[in-house]
Amino acid sequence: MTVDLNKDTLLCMSLSGRPSNIGTRFHNYLYKELGLNFVYKAFTTTDVPAAVAGIRALGIRGCGVSMPFKEQVIAHVDVMHDSASAIDSVNTIVNEDGILHAYNTDYQAVANLLRENKVDTSLSVAVSGSGGMAKAVVAAVRDTGFTDVTVVARNKSAGDALASQYGFQWREDLDDLRPGVLINATPIGMAGGPEADALSFPDVVVRGAEVVFDVVAMPENTPLILLARELGKTVITGASVIALQAAEQFALYTGVRPSAEQIQRASEYSRA
Amino acid sequence: MTVDLNKDTLLCMSLSGRPSNIGTRFHNYLYKELGLNFVYKAFTTTDVPAAVAGIRALGIRGCGVSMPFKEQVIAHVDVMHDSASAIDSVNTIVNEDGILHAYNTDYQAVANLLRENKVDTSLSVAVSGSGGMAKAVVAAVRDTGFTDVTVVARNKSAGDALASQYGFQWREDLDDLRPGVLINATPIGMAGGPEADALSFPDVVVRGAEVVFDVVAMPENTPLILLARELGKTVITGASVIALQAAEQFALYTGVRPSAEQIQRASEYSRA
Repeated sequence: MTVDLNKDTLLCMSLSGRPSNIGTRFHNYLYKELGLNFVYKAFTTTDVPAAVAGIRALGIRGCGVSMPFKEQVIAHVDVMHDSASAIDSVNTIVNEDGILHAYNTDYQAVANLLRENKVDTSLSVAVSGSGGMAKAVVAAVRDTGFTDVTVVARNKSAGDALASQYGFQWREDLDDLRPGVLINATPIGMAGGPEADALSFPDVVVRGAEVVFDVVAMPENTPLILLARELGKTVITGASVIALQAAEQFALYTGVRPSAEQIQRASEYSRA
Repeated sequence: MTVDLNKDTLLCMSLSGRPSNIGTRFHNYLYKELGLNFVYKAFTTTDVPAAVAGIRALGIRGCGVSMPFKEQVIAHVDVMHDSASAIDSVNTIVNEDGILHAYNTDYQAVANLLRENKVDTSLSVAVSGSGGMAKAVVAAVRDTGFTDVTVVARNKSAGDALASQYGFQWREDLDDLRPGVLINATPIGMAGGPEADALSFPDVVVRGAEVVFDVVAMPENTPLILLARELGKTVITGASVIALQAAEQFALYTGVRPSAEQIQRASEYSRA
């Protein structure tokens, strides 16, 4: 993506353990399309406190926060907004004249996608995972009206705490449960990760579901999504989540809200 | 200047009290010309320690340091190289895997320009100023073989200390001295500054000189340079200094040394 630069150009960035090209391409595409004097670049760090202090000291306008930093940054920002404080997880930092405001746009994106896809709230739901993204998903599931929800997590203490917070149940695995809605909020299926080829729910559980939702965005067609498509299930992909949440970040950073069509084109460009 | 960006793009930057477009345009021009995956952007800060720690934590590859931060950054870098430690002034930081190396490329640029212009080392020299740039100039003047040197500075303690360090004399003003070489290392004549329209040496002193050298780079034709040209003096401009020192920085950041012709074109582009 080409961008124009001068001394007044504002920098936005991301912090993640494993940077991808998606954010860099998505945001720079829209800056150019909309004629905004911004530039976006992905970073990683081994020193979160100094990285966040550097955002403040250098006047970097905004920062997307990804795994594994979504909880660690909380101690270093100045204002926690509801979307982040409700789930103790930050995925967006906005620098307002040296005051760092924290938000979570994943929460909003997941809730919007459940509504847009008209997922029946009487269905039972299983959410796999207990990290920052799982927190956003469980809160969004609760807030869109689902009541029969199971958190599936290998980590008992984190999984149990997350489920209990919303009055849901925790399980280490689903056993004979066959939920109507499956949502993967773990890194299983992520390209380049240790479990890139794995299914985040057992084959037999996927067969029993109506709706399959994966938050893993790269690749768009994870093993879970591929199987669900093959079985004719309703599918919601991590590519949709990342595009919607990035559009929210974009609006927070620039004050400009791109159209649905612009978001669609930026999303396609970002994954090309 | 347009640049291409992806997740692997390395960021270089500058820190200065009053950012200009010159560095941003110079470096981005050469990145594009040479096909290097870098991007450059100017920053300012009100918190130097956090800004420098941010460079380290974010893996920002290099940072040009300008007034008024050239001395303040010393306490926050890891390795002072000779060009910087000899004059207690840093204008370049290079981040090698989290270790911040500090250099001064102004010193090298000034020395090279005195040699390239074959300035007669038997001439007497007056250097005006006592800040970070004046330190680089006085050291370069000494190291290129000049022996009759006067430091002219309103600040007695800084001016006297700088002159004494090299066995030269300090004066508050030149009085009846008529040095053969005049070098301005103060911000007098700088666009947008409080003394933009002022001459950094008195008219009568300029008339008596053979060579007039101004380190102020914006505008290229300061009041001092305009007068010296009008009088037919040999002239060396701050535009030459900034281009040469930026080319040295470029080589330190990227490992690639642009040709003289590429530096010339980048310099012209940077000021357009």
